[in-house]
Amino acid sequence: MDKLIIIKIGGNIIDDENKLSSFLRDFAAIKANKILVHGGGKLASRLAEQMNVPQQVIDGRRITDAETLKIVTMVYAGYINKNIVAQLQSRGCNALGLSGADGNAILAHKRVHPTMDYGFVGDVDAINASLLTTLIHAGLCPVLAPITHDKAGQVLNTNADTIAQETAKALSAFYDTELIYSFEKNGVLLDIGNENSVIKKLNIAYYSQLKTEGKIFAGMIPKLDNAFSALKNGVKKVIIGKAEEIQQLLSGDKGTSISHD
Amino acid sequence: MDKLIIIKIGGNIIDDENKLSSFLRDFAAIKANKILVHGGGKLASRLAEQMNVPQQVIDGRRITDAETLKIVTMVYAGYINKNIVAQLQSRGCNALGLSGADGNAILAHKRVHPTMDYGFVGDVDAINASLLTTLIHAGLCPVLAPITHDKAGQVLNTNADTIAQETAKALSAFYDTELIYSFEKNGVLLDIGNENSVIKKLNIAYYSQLKTEGKIFAGMIPKLDNAFSALKNGVKKVIIGKAEEIQQLLSGDKGTSISHD
Repeated sequence: MDKLIIIKIGGNIIDDENKLSSFLRDFAAIKANKILVHGGGKLASRLAEQMNVPQQVIDGRRITDAETLKIVTMVYAGYINKNIVAQLQSRGCNALGLSGADGNAILAHKRVHPTMDYGFVGDVDAINASLLTTLIHAGLCPVLAPITHDKAGQVLNTNADTIAQETAKALSAFYDTELIYSFEKNGVLLDIGNENSVIKKLNIAYYSQLKTEGKIFAGMIPKLDNAFSALKNGVKKVIIGKAEEIQQLLSGDKGTSISHD
Repeated sequence: MDKLIIIKIGGNIIDDENKLSSFLRDFAAIKANKILVHGGGKLASRLAEQMNVPQQVIDGRRITDAETLKIVTMVYAGYINKNIVAQLQSRGCNALGLSGADGNAILAHKRVHPTMDYGFVGDVDAINASLLTTLIHAGLCPVLAPITHDKAGQVLNTNADTIAQETAKALSAFYDTELIYSFEKNGVLLDIGNENSVIKKLNIAYYSQLKTEGKIFAGMIPKLDNAFSALKNGVKKVIIGKAEEIQQLLSGDKGTSISHD
């Protein structure tokens, strides 16, 4: 099988024009088939402020009401996605931006929760692997925005980490798929206060041992549980590290590489 | 050659939720290969007002400064494009939204003018017919937003009528292409005050005669000149009429049909 690299970048890169530009240069230079998944960043909150749209946060969770959905659709699928695509095009990467509605790329449903109404938040049901493989086969590089749809005409706000993970799982039937989560730290750290304590390799046995010993920072546990779930579903490798060091992450010189063995 | 129908809709439909929904229902029902090109509508101006971004108008022309470009990219390529795509998906049409940057769909350059600086306005250089035919061949319906790029990382604001026309010309080498300009009137009128005076058929000889007789409303002349230029460049037919009557426009029962004979 051909190799496919899926990279997820978050707000820490998107909000920094220079970091983003330098990341996109490195991303464009990757020779393998590739998909970029991007998150949102601070622009949506700034726009909400400018538009006087109050941002509701309940129990630490941002609620996507109708006005906020409009803003994130504009910012994520419009401004951020199109500027990333235009920059990649200028660097010779034939990028094509997609929301989940485009070609039914990502089908989701409005989140149902017993006590909370998250508003227009979508949980992923299906990735359209056929569409993505068709685009990749045509020499295109899909760039996925964290906006999905429900096939009933509703767009939904969806977590970019989840999109990256579900896309990696769905495409691992067609490609040897590696998933890279970019991150503000050097990798998964043995000592959260020490950027030099990166765990270079992590498999399920070592992860269980570290968890038992209480050596995994609580905030990392959901990310790592997701990484191992991706491996269980066919993804070959998950790498966690800095987007600024994408080349070294791919070569294995930096970051944490998570795999079966 | 297979038939291809390219329909351009403007602000009068986009700004009216019910009209848009009913148009999209009719559009989804069209059996032939098809492309939708949409304009902007009033949402961008409303957003500019909310964000306190003054809109510069010089000699009746809106100037696309950096802040306005950000707004139109968000609104046209984000909000409007993705909501149209999601609605079409809900009606069984496998729509996929594109700005000109996506897959290098529409290459443009920043307008150069001897005395005016239009700002980030793009004039079209090339339509990527290969991308559009690949998508159509894969069963997808491209939905084009009026945002282009210059292949040097810059997105640009571009007239949707021009995008529709250039797309029709470029694709007429691959398809029997019909171009439909939707419009607020019943068609090209012999008497601008009488909606029942629609000219049903117009060819170049009849058009020249009407122009000589001063019977073509001045505002229609650029639109019609463009229509005849499209015909000269391979487009089979141009139809001008109401988006609300798309089925009758396609069947020839309403609107003005412009062709060689």
